[in-house]
Amino acid sequence: MTRTVLLIQCPDKKGIVARVSEFIFRHECNILTSDQHTTDPEGGRYFMRIVFALEEDKVSRETFEQDWARVAEELGAKWSIHYATETPRVGILVSKQDHCLFDLLYRHRSGEFSVQIPLVISNHEDCRDLVDRYGIPFHYVPVTPETKLKAEQQVLDLVQESTDFLVLARYMRILSDGFLAAYKKDILNIHHSFLPSFKGADPYRQAYDRGVKIIGATAHFVTPALDEGPIIEQMVERVYYKDTVDDLKRKGRNLEKLALANAIHAYLDHRIIRDAQRTIVFQ
Amino acid sequence: MTRTVLLIQCPDKKGIVARVSEFIFRHECNILTSDQHTTDPEGGRYFMRIVFALEEDKVSRETFEQDWARVAEELGAKWSIHYATETPRVGILVSKQDHCLFDLLYRHRSGEFSVQIPLVISNHEDCRDLVDRYGIPFHYVPVTPETKLKAEQQVLDLVQESTDFLVLARYMRILSDGFLAAYKKDILNIHHSFLPSFKGADPYRQAYDRGVKIIGATAHFVTPALDEGPIIEQMVERVYYKDTVDDLKRKGRNLEKLALANAIHAYLDHRIIRDAQRTIVFQ
Amino acid sequence: MTRTVLLIQCPDKKGIVARVSEFIFRHECNILTSDQHTTDPEGGRYFMRIVFALEEDKVSRETFEQDWARVAEELGAKWSIHYATETPRVGILVSKQDHCLFDLLYRHRSGEFSVQIPLVISNHEDCRDLVDRYGIPFHYVPVTPETKLKAEQQVLDLVQESTDFLVLARYMRILSDGFLAAYKKDILNIHHSFLPSFKGADPYRQAYDRGVKIIGATAHFVTPALDEGPIIEQMVERVYYKDTVDDLKRKGRNLEKLALANAIHAYLDHRIIRDAQRTIVFQ
Amino acid sequence: MTRTVLLIQCPDKKGIVARVSEFIFRHECNILTSDQHTTDPEGGRYFMRIVFALEEDKVSRETFEQDWARVAEELGAKWSIHYATETPRVGILVSKQDHCLFDLLYRHRSGEFSVQIPLVISNHEDCRDLVDRYGIPFHYVPVTPETKLKAEQQVLDLVQESTDFLVLARYMRILSDGFLAAYKKDILNIHHSFLPSFKGADPYRQAYDRGVKIIGATAHFVTPALDEGPIIEQMVERVYYKDTVDDLKRKGRNLEKLALANAIHAYLDHRIIRDAQRTIVFQ
Repeated sequence: MTRTVLLIQCPDKKGIVARVSEFIFRHECNILTSDQHTTDPEGGRYFMRIVFALEEDKVSRETFEQDWARVAEELGAKWSIHYATETPRVGILVSKQDHCLFDLLYRHRSGEFSVQIPLVISNHEDCRDLVDRYGIPFHYVPVTPETKLKAEQQVLDLVQESTDFLVLARYMRILSDGFLAAYKKDILNIHHSFLPSFKGADPYRQAYDRGVKIIGATAHFVTPALDEGPIIEQMVERVYYKDTVDDLKRKGRNLEKLALANAIHAYLDHRIIRDAQRTIVFQ
Repeated sequence: MTRTVLLIQCPDKKGIVARVSEFIFRHECNILTSDQHTTDPEGGRYFMRIVFALEEDKVSRETFEQDWARVAEELGAKWSIHYATETPRVGILVSKQDHCLFDLLYRHRSGEFSVQIPLVISNHEDCRDLVDRYGIPFHYVPVTPETKLKAEQQVLDLVQESTDFLVLARYMRILSDGFLAAYKKDILNIHHSFLPSFKGADPYRQAYDRGVKIIGATAHFVTPALDEGPIIEQMVERVYYKDTVDDLKRKGRNLEKLALANAIHAYLDHRIIRDAQRTIVFQ
Repeated sequence: MTRTVLLIQCPDKKGIVARVSEFIFRHECNILTSDQHTTDPEGGRYFMRIVFALEEDKVSRETFEQDWARVAEELGAKWSIHYATETPRVGILVSKQDHCLFDLLYRHRSGEFSVQIPLVISNHEDCRDLVDRYGIPFHYVPVTPETKLKAEQQVLDLVQESTDFLVLARYMRILSDGFLAAYKKDILNIHHSFLPSFKGADPYRQAYDRGVKIIGATAHFVTPALDEGPIIEQMVERVYYKDTVDDLKRKGRNLEKLALANAIHAYLDHRIIRDAQRTIVFQ
Repeated sequence: MTRTVLLIQCPDKKGIVARVSEFIFRHECNILTSDQHTTDPEGGRYFMRIVFALEEDKVSRETFEQDWARVAEELGAKWSIHYATETPRVGILVSKQDHCLFDLLYRHRSGEFSVQIPLVISNHEDCRDLVDRYGIPFHYVPVTPETKLKAEQQVLDLVQESTDFLVLARYMRILSDGFLAAYKKDILNIHHSFLPSFKGADPYRQAYDRGVKIIGATAHFVTPALDEGPIIEQMVERVYYKDTVDDLKRKGRNLEKLALANAIHAYLDHRIIRDAQRTIVFQ
């Protein structure tokens, strides 16, 4: 049997759970867990995550998907299916600060993340040693205002075929709309503030100057609008009057690591559904 | 249509979701939300909360319940059904400290809790004025070691018929096993520590002496074993070296109010299923 | 002896602690607690809160203050002194939502706040009953765009002499610069978002639409720039995909009550020093 | 100038701050920050942490310490002095689980911890590679019930001279009273529960079985009584009904890393004073 996750979103109407669960049952699968959500009882959208054991000796993936596609069409549903046997491939982009990269590589090595890391790309050489030590190919792609387009093309060539999604682990360059349009797949970013507060540069300094009593970090999907993408996870911590900007940065690094790790954990578990500007993150 | 909540627990097996959702669908109901949980993929127990709109002009409560009882028997399920039109009745027991009582009365008055409060019982007169002001009957039932049995009988006479569940809002008397056996319905208690730490008397003093850096409060169901009942909700807050025992008590009162309010909120929403020593609290 | 709090801020330089503590010691006072803070080791500002027992039979308040004024001048210090025997008077302004008002009145009655409440002012009649019940004078001062100036004058006439500071406990009218300039004393406000996110109207709706995973409330001093005053306290809580805007409001009310109560607690304890856009809140 | 930290504890009495700050001032030092705490206004103990710039060209360490020793004797004070130029040496003990070790080595390498790590000792070979990669000597000292005494002697021989304190980074062996008596210096441990709940073995399983809604991790000083030493730091996180014991462990690892890192950070900053069963942790 193969642990399988089916993510669905469609207009809400009566009988969807019955329709889907009956379909699953008729295809000899045992539902392990299932979650539903409706944004609005009246005319809202319906979201479903259903995890089941597919008995491939009785029903093949092809049969299941073909049959399901017909039901999905009926329901007007967007959907995706994920088999536990398929390990997704993530490309990591990083600049100089290595705490998030380090944390991800450790979690990967320790088996916490079921993911492949075919490559790490950076616009600086600083992290090469660390990445080498893990036996992962490291690509140095410097970016200057003049070479930005070319550099992005280089990155795209590296990741387009080799990855299923990207993680910006404190990558301090803004990816152009052109890059996003070309890559098409999901890109997760960690921003070092409690969004929507303190977008843009040097958010810990901004937070210090504003005198907030709690700081945060935000993991979100990248969209063309800077720091405006759908939020996946946020972590916060209290700060004190004694805390300097450097203390905020130190505390913030812990938040960044954890918010990004939690977001990736949810992503690899297929617990996230994007709904325009928002995300449904099933638990 | 009547918003209806059905809570189910049974041994896990293939097809339960399909069976239940098909049943609901066939009885002309629209599922509003549904949650499932299995404790263990292999041979575990299955828990379900399903919220649906019952169209009573098409299917009566009697018909629905009779039909459902047959399905439940098939599944070996324990279940309960709750109609939004039925407002449960809670009896509140309190001693001298009135912060939780006060908080509950306010939330009740402001419409946050959909509940009736037929009476408040106390072993002290301190809270009478407050309760009078809300127009709720207040009963003074003093308790001494000698009169305990008689006092409990008095309480039982007051609440047995008039209430659907009890809340101990800092009631500092331990209810005897005899009382629990006689009352049978749910009793929620707030304990002023982060259980299982600091059971029994004066937990803030215990917490201070042990030097913990975080204190808590715990809302739980009452069982014969003191402070050992299934936990519903816990709240915590950081303490500092400057905090005295009185500061811990002050911070703790906020935690107690909130933990108890959240627990009652979940209870009134029928989001809690008891599973031996644990609780499933759907969100 | 009289518990006395002295708050000081001045340019940092060598020997301030020695100078101040020697002064206190020489005036026969026992220091109970003292806190210092320097914003920047080089050329920063110095902040001090010192709590001591003034033995008025040995040194009178007048003598102490006169002597101290000379030292303060030497140090170039701004300062204020607060005797535990003087209970400050707060005027509360509120609109329709009464949860913060209610919470404050309860804390006041229970002795948690050492403060007098000479009056409550509202632009609506909704809270009159509640306030009456506490035996506190309630003043209804309606505000329309046309009558705003006159209404503010009315409020000013009510509070100018009778209060030492104001609390806006969900008062939904913006006080004009003219009012602030005339009143001069401190005004504390509770804003129902995690500032600087979601300034202005309907912040829970804004938070929902943006899809944040954590919401907050912010207690701050009022300044002419809307929702831009120095922050005193912030509280946050996690939200879930199931939470509607109404759930955010319900959770938010708990945060608002607590953030405002903590801010007032610190204020009454004289633990807050304003430093331009920021606050030092000693613990 | 040398950044110097002086930690003091003594019986409380009038004039200590004046006496100490005058002493510091007279020795040409500029106080950078200072914190005081009295456990009890009447007859309590007094704790002080004072950070100052020692101008060694004007006053030598020897002179300062000799002069200070006389004042300390007057005050009946226990004290310790710490110069920023002296980097303490920590010995790390670990078993199989490497997440805390890993986190510490990363923080050390990144400059977050100002500490030397002369060696890592383990009763298993699992972490050798990781430690080797950092160029730190790794010592394998296996422990069986029969060889425990001999093994502890081996550990003692390794750390007695070479370290200033020890950190047990998930070292799963209990150090004997004999070892503690012989080593004498501080030993910090991370326990994977919210102490005093769930002492001893398999605390996440205990937490799961008890059905708590929040789990924690505790960094504390090691004393002869198991898991009873003075607590330095605690971190907590909410758990959900869906969380398995493995999820608790995964979440717990984040808490363990952070609680231990915060404790070490405070320790290296000389912000901790032990007071019998409790700790004062200045911020």
